[in-house]
Amino acid sequence: MRAYLDCYPCFLRQALEAARMAGADEQLQRRILGRVLEVMKGATLSATPPQISHQVHRIVRRETGVDDPYRAAKARSTEEALRLYPWMAQVVAAAHDRLDAAVRLSIAGNIIDLAANADYELRDEVTRVLQEPYGIDDGDAFRVALDGVEQVLYLADNAGETVFDRPLIETIDAPVIYAVKGHPTINDATIADARAAGVAEVAELISTGSDAPGTVLETCSERFRRTYGEADLIIAKGQANYETLSTEGPRVFFLLLTKCPVIARDLDAPHRSLILYQGRGDGGRRQEKEL
Amino acid sequence: MRAYLDCYPCFLRQALEAARMAGADEQLQRRILGRVLEVMKGATLSATPPQISHQVHRIVRRETGVDDPYRAAKARSTEEALRLYPWMAQVVAAAHDRLDAAVRLSIAGNIIDLAANADYELRDEVTRVLQEPYGIDDGDAFRVALDGVEQVLYLADNAGETVFDRPLIETIDAPVIYAVKGHPTINDATIADARAAGVAEVAELISTGSDAPGTVLETCSERFRRTYGEADLIIAKGQANYETLSTEGPRVFFLLLTKCPVIARDLDAPHRSLILYQGRGDGGRRQEKEL
Repeated sequence: MRAYLDCYPCFLRQALEAARMAGADEQLQRRILGRVLEVMKGATLSATPPQISHQVHRIVRRETGVDDPYRAAKARSTEEALRLYPWMAQVVAAAHDRLDAAVRLSIAGNIIDLAANADYELRDEVTRVLQEPYGIDDGDAFRVALDGVEQVLYLADNAGETVFDRPLIETIDAPVIYAVKGHPTINDATIADARAAGVAEVAELISTGSDAPGTVLETCSERFRRTYGEADLIIAKGQANYETLSTEGPRVFFLLLTKCPVIARDLDAPHRSLILYQGRGDGGRRQEKEL
Repeated sequence: MRAYLDCYPCFLRQALEAARMAGADEQLQRRILGRVLEVMKGATLSATPPQISHQVHRIVRRETGVDDPYRAAKARSTEEALRLYPWMAQVVAAAHDRLDAAVRLSIAGNIIDLAANADYELRDEVTRVLQEPYGIDDGDAFRVALDGVEQVLYLADNAGETVFDRPLIETIDAPVIYAVKGHPTINDATIADARAAGVAEVAELISTGSDAPGTVLETCSERFRRTYGEADLIIAKGQANYETLSTEGPRVFFLLLTKCPVIARDLDAPHRSLILYQGRGDGGRRQEKEL
């Protein structure tokens, strides 16, 4: 999905939030915003939003000297989610349709996204999301794709949300490779964050090698790109993965909550709805060859 | 109230909205945002937010060649509010405390503010606001100030909201001078908008001579500044008038809804609450001499 002009206010908002997370005073916040304004002036709208916010968060880290502004917030999110894990396991075990329950939990975990909304009451919100209708439900295609698949590549999103991915990983009847960021960016999960969430016990952890939000393939390691190119089925969590991979073809299934009206419009789905969306286009195979 | 860095995303959002209101295509929207980014880079935070958005809306008008992007929206707001006027008159007539009812209606009219929120169900929202507690209630001081006053200067806000000002003007036991913008800016009322709302029947209409949101005194006509300087009691409607006149002293009473979290914080009041606030500082008298 390309960037829209509506994304511009959001880049500024994200820069401010990250700068404050890193402890920047108002003068430093101002300098950071000045740099971000320059990036925005030079940005091309054919870029995806994470390609632009990638630069934004690099500026924040460079100017503040804080390598992981969201470290404490990520640890809190993971702890909070871990407290809910026994309940999640019960929800899935008691469900008539275990796969659907696990998918819904995984999507509900997408609430833990400080980049979009700093306030949430986790358990209440999750319970609400579990009962809501899907905005897009490609569940039938997802079941067909999962049937007999040899391996699944699972693209992680935020720390804490990682815990909500575990029930789905445990429900899928195939080995899962769980890919996290190579370096901190916003509150996205790194290897350390995924380990703290217990994901290493149920999946093989790998790194994308990138510090961009979402999956900006040209910033990923060659090794990751090979894994990506060979994958038969990819589960991509969260808005940023949709923004970066939306045209990557039908082997990618996007699991997210539409927390941004621009993304909801791009998906032609209601704002704040559950999305299980099978990708369109053939970018996946094509792009891998080009890279 | 000075500008905060949190205002920056909002300047961009306002520029985009106004550009679209003026019918700009994406290429022109982009050029406008580019100009606005430059203004923001050069802006000083000691300015009030309307001093900066003044430049933003000038850019939109100049680049689009559309002198009044909100003309149709303003006409719709006025018509919609006029349909509610008979009901408003009943609400005040039936009230135990007529002044309080009229003040609440006037504040409730502040919902018609497209710059802050494009979606609202007018009658429902107004009814809700009429029943809510005040976030700040300087009603006692307001009654004392009104008692025996010779004349009231009433600084208008948006078109449509003007209709909601009529019950208060009719309730106040003194002649009212109703000041509107000298030139269109956002959805702020001009002389024509105030006439369409029927305000000319209950108050003397004057123009500030300015095309800035709020009341940026240095951009107002000498004639308006004289009227302003001589006024014993000023009613200032809406957020932008608070932003520009918050330190103008106790003769200014601000009536608004806190629709912006930055303004709510500056007022030390809850977000989305009714405000009847007596100004602090002595800027009113002092500044008039300096001008």
